[in-house]
Amino acid sequence: MRFGLFGAAQAQRNQGPDVDSAAGFNDYIEYLIEAEALGYHSAFMVEHHFTGFGQVSATLNLLGWIGAKTSTLRLGTAVLVLPWHNPVLLAEQAATIDLLSGGRLDFGVGKGYRHNEFVGFRIPMEEAEGRFNESIDIISKSWTSNERFSFHGKYWQFDDIIVEPPTHQQPHPPFWQGAGSQGSLRKVAARGHNLLLDQFASMDETTNRFNTYKAAMLANGNGFDPAQVAVARAFFVTDTQEQKTEALHRRMTAQRRLHAVSQTPDNNNKASIMAFSDTFEANEEATLFGDPDHICRKIEWLQNQGVDYILLNGGGTSRDNLRRFAKDIMPHFRTESSARIIAA
Amino acid sequence: MRFGLFGAAQAQRNQGPDVDSAAGFNDYIEYLIEAEALGYHSAFMVEHHFTGFGQVSATLNLLGWIGAKTSTLRLGTAVLVLPWHNPVLLAEQAATIDLLSGGRLDFGVGKGYRHNEFVGFRIPMEEAEGRFNESIDIISKSWTSNERFSFHGKYWQFDDIIVEPPTHQQPHPPFWQGAGSQGSLRKVAARGHNLLLDQFASMDETTNRFNTYKAAMLANGNGFDPAQVAVARAFFVTDTQEQKTEALHRRMTAQRRLHAVSQTPDNNNKASIMAFSDTFEANEEATLFGDPDHICRKIEWLQNQGVDYILLNGGGTSRDNLRRFAKDIMPHFRTESSARIIAA
Repeated sequence: MRFGLFGAAQAQRNQGPDVDSAAGFNDYIEYLIEAEALGYHSAFMVEHHFTGFGQVSATLNLLGWIGAKTSTLRLGTAVLVLPWHNPVLLAEQAATIDLLSGGRLDFGVGKGYRHNEFVGFRIPMEEAEGRFNESIDIISKSWTSNERFSFHGKYWQFDDIIVEPPTHQQPHPPFWQGAGSQGSLRKVAARGHNLLLDQFASMDETTNRFNTYKAAMLANGNGFDPAQVAVARAFFVTDTQEQKTEALHRRMTAQRRLHAVSQTPDNNNKASIMAFSDTFEANEEATLFGDPDHICRKIEWLQNQGVDYILLNGGGTSRDNLRRFAKDIMPHFRTESSARIIAA
Repeated sequence: MRFGLFGAAQAQRNQGPDVDSAAGFNDYIEYLIEAEALGYHSAFMVEHHFTGFGQVSATLNLLGWIGAKTSTLRLGTAVLVLPWHNPVLLAEQAATIDLLSGGRLDFGVGKGYRHNEFVGFRIPMEEAEGRFNESIDIISKSWTSNERFSFHGKYWQFDDIIVEPPTHQQPHPPFWQGAGSQGSLRKVAARGHNLLLDQFASMDETTNRFNTYKAAMLANGNGFDPAQVAVARAFFVTDTQEQKTEALHRRMTAQRRLHAVSQTPDNNNKASIMAFSDTFEANEEATLFGDPDHICRKIEWLQNQGVDYILLNGGGTSRDNLRRFAKDIMPHFRTESSARIIAA
């Protein structure tokens, strides 16, 4: 079983002097440096814009800084929203990080789902899928073509280009995509991309999605390796029921804030990530909050469903939470490869 | 007198296995880490695309990596070509690097001059100036507005955005611009931006440009500090005339290659950076190639014209050249502030 991290730093514009803001980013970097030392496999980072509460916007720049400060941690995006980016510039940026990090980039991409971002960039939500697909094509071509090419699409046109630098991973860094609906899951599998499952869906729904993707990958002849599916889950190691209840309420407050910026004016945003139940009970069920025994049992259940890779999210940048999970929970789920290294 | 560096790494797509390519980038990073230790003030890095000979494309990503590996080196761009970029994404990326580096970003920008890049991005060269000006406005507003705003320009539109993270430097990182013609120099001064003078123009032409900018800054009431003008010069410390001649020929070959990708089909690219004389004698005159005495005399001449900041370019990533300049030449031009630090 692999354990990575999923999250972001905060650097707010309105918090006054920049000392606070820089600290938000720098704390997160220090958190991930320690995470690598504790045995975490990866850090996946969001991209968001215009929230006013300081989410990470220039994901590949922060991720690159983290790459320079670490040596084995996989550097993931979860997810870069392709409709906002010139695909050739993004291919160059990602290739640069992959090259500098010696091939540690996990290139997670999405089509966007937040209303406030489509408004800000003035891109109609209806174009999201078309722009996403076109960008995937251009980025793939940019990374793999050693010859000059032209591309004349609906949204982007380029003439006589060769895109540099080369990526370190060959033929290119792995693509990861988030998906929730049956149709989306099958599309991800059809492309042979890796799958990110969100932190909000229930454990049952998550395993349904896992199985849909697995079946589609096998049906398509793409083969299936459980390391291709990363399941995001919020985590918080607590000692008492009171701590746990308090942490779940904090989480629900933060979720509602995100929901508010993401929702469309007609209150009908159809993205699967928006469709989770936000009751206290649903949150308790979907998260890894509680004492180490409780968390271990939930992870075992996921493991029995075939899940082999969990991306842990939350607890702010609590070092205590990070350390306790590594000390009290990770050792129960040693990967075969770790076991082999220990035996060698 | 301040000495910084100006240049780029190479990571070529067609050199076979990526070991070579990664080495090109990694060598450059190691070169700049040593440069910081030797007392160099800054590293300014180019942005270019589609050359096929592996110039740096994702400048802020490579620069960020260098920022994470250094602690005092100023991180400059020379220059980011604004017409290629979504200005809000670029403002976010630059702010992230400025924040993470504790305010070390020098934000050099230009409108582009290379034919092959305008073709590749399918942007008419006639739009360069308009796009440049609009981007400057959006980036400035993005960095300085603590409130949501909308922008409806000719090339870019945004609605109800607040751009994060904040920059570390307040009100924002310094803008630097390249300029050569009298009109362009006056425009840079009118904006109060800092000035980058290219490495190709003769010593006389360079001081003419310096004086035009200085006069315009004073006339505009912007004040003038010589630290606001960085003069790029190729440098190579040699022991024999033969070494010097050989190095100048290497330089001329490289220049012709750049000229070929930059020139327009009508052979009439009007950018001032294209107008230099490429005779051997002109190259000898404009560069700092030769033994330490010879180089010191040329720098003294520039110093007597008022120049106080030189960006050294060239010699590939020769550590020997970097060290000899630091050891044999820099001590003759101790800055007042260094002298004060030494006296304290």
